[in-house]
Amino acid sequence: MKKHILIILIGLCHQYILSQQQLSEKYNLMPWPKEVKENNQKFVITKGFSVGIQDISNQRIRKATTRFLRRLSGRTGVFIEDGFAQESSTKDSFSLLIKYKRKGNLELGEDESYQLKITNKYIHIDAETDIGVLRGLETLLQLTNYNKTQYYFSGVSIKDTPRFPWRGLMIDVARHYQPIGVLKRNLDAMASVKLNVFHWHLTDDQGFRVQVNSRPKLHQLGSDGQYYTHNQIKEVVAYAADLGIRVVPEFDVPGHASSWLTAYPEIASKDTIYNIERYAGIFNPTLDPTNNKTYKILDDVFSEIAPLFPDVYFHIGGDENEGKHWDENQNIQAFKKKHGLKDNHELQNYFNIKVQKILKKNGKIMMGWDEIFQPELPKNVVIHSWRGKEAMLEAAKKGYKTVLSKGFYIDLLKPLKHHYLNEPLKDNHGLTDNQLKNILGGEATMWGELVTPLTIDSRIWPRTAAIAERFWSDKNITNVSNMMKRLDVVSQRLEELGITHLRNRDVILRNISNHQNISSLITLTRICEPLKAYQRNKGGKEYKSYSPFTQFVDACGTDAKDAFLFNEAVEGFLSDNNQNNLQKITPFLTKWIDNHKAFIKINNNPTLAKLEKLSKNIANTSTILKTALISGKMSKNKLNQAKIIIKNLKEPTADTELAIVDSLQKLIEYFEK
Amino acid sequence: MKKHILIILIGLCHQYILSQQQLSEKYNLMPWPKEVKENNQKFVITKGFSVGIQDISNQRIRKATTRFLRRLSGRTGVFIEDGFAQESSTKDSFSLLIKYKRKGNLELGEDESYQLKITNKYIHIDAETDIGVLRGLETLLQLTNYNKTQYYFSGVSIKDTPRFPWRGLMIDVARHYQPIGVLKRNLDAMASVKLNVFHWHLTDDQGFRVQVNSRPKLHQLGSDGQYYTHNQIKEVVAYAADLGIRVVPEFDVPGHASSWLTAYPEIASKDTIYNIERYAGIFNPTLDPTNNKTYKILDDVFSEIAPLFPDVYFHIGGDENEGKHWDENQNIQAFKKKHGLKDNHELQNYFNIKVQKILKKNGKIMMGWDEIFQPELPKNVVIHSWRGKEAMLEAAKKGYKTVLSKGFYIDLLKPLKHHYLNEPLKDNHGLTDNQLKNILGGEATMWGELVTPLTIDSRIWPRTAAIAERFWSDKNITNVSNMMKRLDVVSQRLEELGITHLRNRDVILRNISNHQNISSLITLTRICEPLKAYQRNKGGKEYKSYSPFTQFVDACGTDAKDAFLFNEAVEGFLSDNNQNNLQKITPFLTKWIDNHKAFIKINNNPTLAKLEKLSKNIANTSTILKTALISGKMSKNKLNQAKIIIKNLKEPTADTELAIVDSLQKLIEYFEK
Repeated sequence: MKKHILIILIGLCHQYILSQQQLSEKYNLMPWPKEVKENNQKFVITKGFSVGIQDISNQRIRKATTRFLRRLSGRTGVFIEDGFAQESSTKDSFSLLIKYKRKGNLELGEDESYQLKITNKYIHIDAETDIGVLRGLETLLQLTNYNKTQYYFSGVSIKDTPRFPWRGLMIDVARHYQPIGVLKRNLDAMASVKLNVFHWHLTDDQGFRVQVNSRPKLHQLGSDGQYYTHNQIKEVVAYAADLGIRVVPEFDVPGHASSWLTAYPEIASKDTIYNIERYAGIFNPTLDPTNNKTYKILDDVFSEIAPLFPDVYFHIGGDENEGKHWDENQNIQAFKKKHGLKDNHELQNYFNIKVQKILKKNGKIMMGWDEIFQPELPKNVVIHSWRGKEAMLEAAKKGYKTVLSKGFYIDLLKPLKHHYLNEPLKDNHGLTDNQLKNILGGEATMWGELVTPLTIDSRIWPRTAAIAERFWSDKNITNVSNMMKRLDVVSQRLEELGITHLRNRDVILRNISNHQNISSLITLTRICEPLKAYQRNKGGKEYKSYSPFTQFVDACGTDAKDAFLFNEAVEGFLSDNNQNNLQKITPFLTKWIDNHKAFIKINNNPTLAKLEKLSKNIANTSTILKTALISGKMSKNKLNQAKIIIKNLKEPTADTELAIVDSLQKLIEYFEK
Repeated sequence: MKKHILIILIGLCHQYILSQQQLSEKYNLMPWPKEVKENNQKFVITKGFSVGIQDISNQRIRKATTRFLRRLSGRTGVFIEDGFAQESSTKDSFSLLIKYKRKGNLELGEDESYQLKITNKYIHIDAETDIGVLRGLETLLQLTNYNKTQYYFSGVSIKDTPRFPWRGLMIDVARHYQPIGVLKRNLDAMASVKLNVFHWHLTDDQGFRVQVNSRPKLHQLGSDGQYYTHNQIKEVVAYAADLGIRVVPEFDVPGHASSWLTAYPEIASKDTIYNIERYAGIFNPTLDPTNNKTYKILDDVFSEIAPLFPDVYFHIGGDENEGKHWDENQNIQAFKKKHGLKDNHELQNYFNIKVQKILKKNGKIMMGWDEIFQPELPKNVVIHSWRGKEAMLEAAKKGYKTVLSKGFYIDLLKPLKHHYLNEPLKDNHGLTDNQLKNILGGEATMWGELVTPLTIDSRIWPRTAAIAERFWSDKNITNVSNMMKRLDVVSQRLEELGITHLRNRDVILRNISNHQNISSLITLTRICEPLKAYQRNKGGKEYKSYSPFTQFVDACGTDAKDAFLFNEAVEGFLSDNNQNNLQKITPFLTKWIDNHKAFIKINNNPTLAKLEKLSKNIANTSTILKTALISGKMSKNKLNQAKIIIKNLKEPTADTELAIVDSLQKLIEYFEK
């Protein structure tokens, strides 16, 4: 009897797991919820759509429901008569009835769970907190569907809660300043995929981006006039709070400090002239940890800034302080000897402990990159791991809370798969249950050396939505092609929040073509990808912060669409000589042959001239391959020609690499055999 | 002898005029400068490009040259090494040397003239004021040119100065709130075509958009939370000042006052419940001019707001106060009798005089729409003419300064030609030289009932650039087709300032197609135009302020491109049966026949279903016409079919009208004969 029950239970579980996979083929939810059940009903969206909330004086819910109604109306074109939610006591029934038990606190670990039920007759969202309601409203919007005569919400029951409590996106506004509008639209996008921490990297060698009234030289001399006023910071923090997003500021010390030292060279470790850094890289300027004035200035800055950020966590960076200037400074060396600090790491520890006290005095808990980790710090300090998961596990074992960014560096422009499958906790993590709680979650990091307001969205989105799924959803949700399918829809919907990742590609191509026909350039962006892992900037020495980021490479992205399809087809063809795959290959070759003819017609300026060789080489290889694939053979002569072209195509062009070059090469080698 | 000189002089003048026309075929300058001479030289743009200014402490010039360098680098891709202008004393020579005599005052009538000279070796900008330099830098950027190997500035000498001192754009942020970012990019665009007044329509029935600390209910109850803080206003004003643009605020009283009365019903003329107005139109709510508290509140508001705006002019609206509630109020009627005010116009005069005193106390000069004009007002009051040029001339004759907006209502969505040829001063104006000086200039008015941040740019641009030419350039610059050619380039360049008129069309089409292939929809936007002159909103009763402005009509604009070309070809064909024109007609017909096949493939949602009949009818007419044009005849049967379809096509579709329908009809009638 027991055996029978067990078999039934296993069967049910199996069915459940299967059904979640099947459902994820059907519904484009991201992050995938903890539990989805479908009921084959649907709620039709009409002009009479109404929203009931228990208390319209809760501004967070009031604003969230208003945004919800605008987006619903905007995407469907339905003229919804009620522009705002109403108090649920005023009417017997609402299309959407929202209930929550209490107002959530915007702090680490707050309850974000919700339940969502959609039937023919009603939609219910129930949650412990209003922040949970926000998460549920985003899920509901992802369930908008249509047929030829109706827009509707698909009938489902969902129970959802996040896996990790810290799900962040870091934006570096120091290397390139990003106006408030850019931040706001990215906050909207974050909320749409249930991210809940905006980590605001505010200072670096290339800029000090905050108004500091007590030390005004910082923003006056350290920012080229591109900084946030106190009021603007409050505006961003309030905007984020309305979305259920915490804001954690970062002031990077003691390294990455050129902008600080441009303002206050007297607290530098080396007596020299400091300027705002214009290049990218790791630089030597660093605060003098032996100088009392250093702490006086830090105290002034942090005491003034801390109240602007209601969140208890405060990030001090602490990374990549190489200590060259410390080694060169005799006073600092003497100080180390005097205080028994045996190396620069210990000197930085000394610095961190003093900084931590300043933060504590201001009611803040310190957070910093890997390098700050050392056992003398209080146990509530958060270690932000960027160099490796080992460091994260080590810190967690020692009782420190940690956040993972290693593997989530989206500025590296690696394929999304790399980030998506970067599971923070492998099965062999070796942590106790208590230690496991120290793993708070993760953050995608958008370092800003190579992005401007024109391009930053396309570097963050849609990829960060998949990373958000890694942070929110079950560990077992790992099917890449299913994720890519769902991501495609999420990507499209991001447009309604003002995210520019799709629209700005054409803006850039129109610019470089001087507003000629850009279709041939679009074709190229679908097979070219930006150079990965900082190769583009050749050690930080090619691009200054004010160099142009308006060029072909800036219109290209990772996971180039045609390349993905072509590579898949070539792999299929080569593995089993499948004719089906051959029929997928040849249209691409034809497209690229024709594309060069279109390209030549617009090839009349110096910018496009840089792409001429690439376009021609792709066309020529395609011609050779197409002929060979049709005839089934390639002459020795053509083979040699093709090999030379491939060698050329492996070289970067205008800071991009050709994402189909390996497949082209394999096809050529196929004929060599 | 005298006769000979006269002939030579006439010849020279003739040659000069001709040459300005010829030059305008060659250079895409807008507004066209007072005098352009070409010298067949060019200044090549290289990474060594440098800018010298006499004083880097002048922030306006410092910022303007920085923006100039970023735009130049962005559009050419040249890695200009110097990211900033340098003080001209530091080096012997600069690529661009800028000189001006004094810092300009941002006030009406300030000198904006400049001279620009471009040779092989150098570029010089010379001006009386730094504001003149800003205008010159914009002209210089419009002279960027290229060949296959170089970007360069075309060699010219230009002397330029504006015709009118008041060249404005009004943006109504009351009907739809526009975030700061939208305003900033529009200010950038204004500066690029040398407009110098931003008229900020801040209050209306649908919203009170300014934080007022002394009367906080105004923004708390009157704005749905969508208002500008004092700091945001200062930010916009400072941003505009950097661009040499004055900011004139408008607080519309005593009518258009629903938002005021939602906050303070006690100063209304009728005892009723007030709410923020959600529809468009002319409404009855109006301030009570007989109530002392009305003036107390106005005094509080204006005294608090006036210092935020450094400009001396302050607009009080005053339009469309129908007085229904005054007529219905016995106290107000009694007050009129007591004070000998014979009608509502005199009562409003009474109100205006009191408001003018409040403004005067705050150092402001009153400005208002036509309706405020009456001889008891001080002579420095500015009359803003929207109902007719006669009113403008009348006011100027009486010694009042005037600004013209009649004919520049860009929200009417009329063809650009209508606005471009709206000459403020016809030859028979009848003004003395002194009275002529009272005509300050004009303003394009972007009323906001039917625009949101997604669409507003496409309603303002590029059309306002042509209106800017009307205000800046010589009266004789009136060639529409030449203007359209230059405007096309200006339109493209506006993209680099973040103006979204081009990019957001596709955003909207992607939304309504649920991200299917939008090419068939693009084709339709090229022949469909939004309903003109407020027909779209059917008396203000179809669209509420929160209705969707994300639909097909929002992707369409005036002067639809294919319609323009097709109509021209049809006109040509019908006037002389020219085969050349026939060859221009048939490809369009073929395109529209094919387009319906593409449309059918994506026609799977309720939004697109609304376009089905239109698309099909266009295709069917095109088929009938194509056959007839090729064969030279149309059967009676086909003729009748075509006539029925044309009748259908004359009906609006999804709030658009078909801009080729008259041409289609004429072609059919051609076969009827």
